[in-house]
Amino acid sequence: MNEVIRQLMERKSVRVYTDQEISPDEKRAILHAAMAAPTAGNQQLYTILDITDEALKQKLSVSCDNQPFIAQGKMVLIFCADFQKWYDVFTEGGCEPRRPGVGDLLLAVSDANIATQNAVTAAQSLGIGSCYIGDIMENCETHRELLHLPPYVFPAAMLVFGYPTQQQIQRPKPVRCRLEDIVQENHYVRRDGKQLRKMFEKECAHQSFDEWCEKFCRRKYNSDFSREMSRSVEKYLQDFLHR
Amino acid sequence: MNEVIRQLMERKSVRVYTDQEISPDEKRAILHAAMAAPTAGNQQLYTILDITDEALKQKLSVSCDNQPFIAQGKMVLIFCADFQKWYDVFTEGGCEPRRPGVGDLLLAVSDANIATQNAVTAAQSLGIGSCYIGDIMENCETHRELLHLPPYVFPAAMLVFGYPTQQQIQRPKPVRCRLEDIVQENHYVRRDGKQLRKMFEKECAHQSFDEWCEKFCRRKYNSDFSREMSRSVEKYLQDFLHR
Repeated sequence: MNEVIRQLMERKSVRVYTDQEISPDEKRAILHAAMAAPTAGNQQLYTILDITDEALKQKLSVSCDNQPFIAQGKMVLIFCADFQKWYDVFTEGGCEPRRPGVGDLLLAVSDANIATQNAVTAAQSLGIGSCYIGDIMENCETHRELLHLPPYVFPAAMLVFGYPTQQQIQRPKPVRCRLEDIVQENHYVRRDGKQLRKMFEKECAHQSFDEWCEKFCRRKYNSDFSREMSRSVEKYLQDFLHR
Repeated sequence: MNEVIRQLMERKSVRVYTDQEISPDEKRAILHAAMAAPTAGNQQLYTILDITDEALKQKLSVSCDNQPFIAQGKMVLIFCADFQKWYDVFTEGGCEPRRPGVGDLLLAVSDANIATQNAVTAAQSLGIGSCYIGDIMENCETHRELLHLPPYVFPAAMLVFGYPTQQQIQRPKPVRCRLEDIVQENHYVRRDGKQLRKMFEKECAHQSFDEWCEKFCRRKYNSDFSREMSRSVEKYLQDFLHR
């Protein structure tokens, strides 16, 4: 295993940070690595918001499902899928562009997320921990107002960075599914009950599958934040749906 | 600049491959690196289709905007945002889950794309080139049939891999925008005409902004594949929109 792959394998979320600041050079290296990521047609369909205002961080730590550690982050970046700038470029060039559609949005969301992972990997190589906050997709109205987002800009992901505490360094990384649970050959095959139970047997060492499943579903899927995410995303989608 | 960041900065798309095969060990390392990527709640909201059937590759090279090099790829992976498996898990566990919404879809698309970029970075570290094919989002009906995709599975990204030819190694990487064109502080600020022209001045060394813009818009945005992407994505979205 080479050094790059070793670091990719070891990387885990870090939610508790030491007092050590992220230097301007480190920040710049992370941002440049993000921007070096693959991007459809070299379009860089994103804008990165660098959240430096402590009061704004505080508000985001509340609006993103009440996670106080967000406000403790030494660097907070929001990767926005940005079709507004391209719509504006085309308009400036006199092209009379069509209105952006959901394909344009999804392509921009992909671009944004691909860039985030370069930021995460670059940070890791500098010893800096990170955590994704998908909750930035929630509360459309609040986030549009807080971040001044125009219609064709969608906050695809937030990343919180900081140097990890000893406890965070020692925390074990959650175990992933086995390769054969995730990779299929040529065609998608819906898993049957037996396969699904096998897939999550590591979660069921000390409880039955049904117990684990009920708790997990309640916490992750039938939860308020999860329902809110779909409501909010549907709101953002309105401007991209033309029916 | 450390080795990891250097590799992130240097990585560029590779579309012409030598005859050298990707070994089973290399493939496994790339897939494990993908699966080690950050994932919301350790849910791995994706399934990776490993396209080994040459006839299927051939069909995909046509359905993905007629790009013959896809069929020449030594490894072709499709990263599907997969909420079907979780819906099935929750049903198997007797949870009576709600129907997945667009928030669930977007979270799964993020998970899938974050995993793709780990695959790309791992491949690069092994000297293996890659290219993203966003066109896999097009032609919903064809791809659902070719890949046997059930309703809650969305093909978020395709990656084609192979060892680069000398010409591909020497090809310069497209220049990205400047940091100040992409990164904004705290709030999104819509760029005015002057800023937009400045942002793309590197594209306008031998042509006016308006000329460049018109050509680029025609090729990338007002193109058939781009319109098709939005039509197709809207089709996939139907199963996630509950209005």
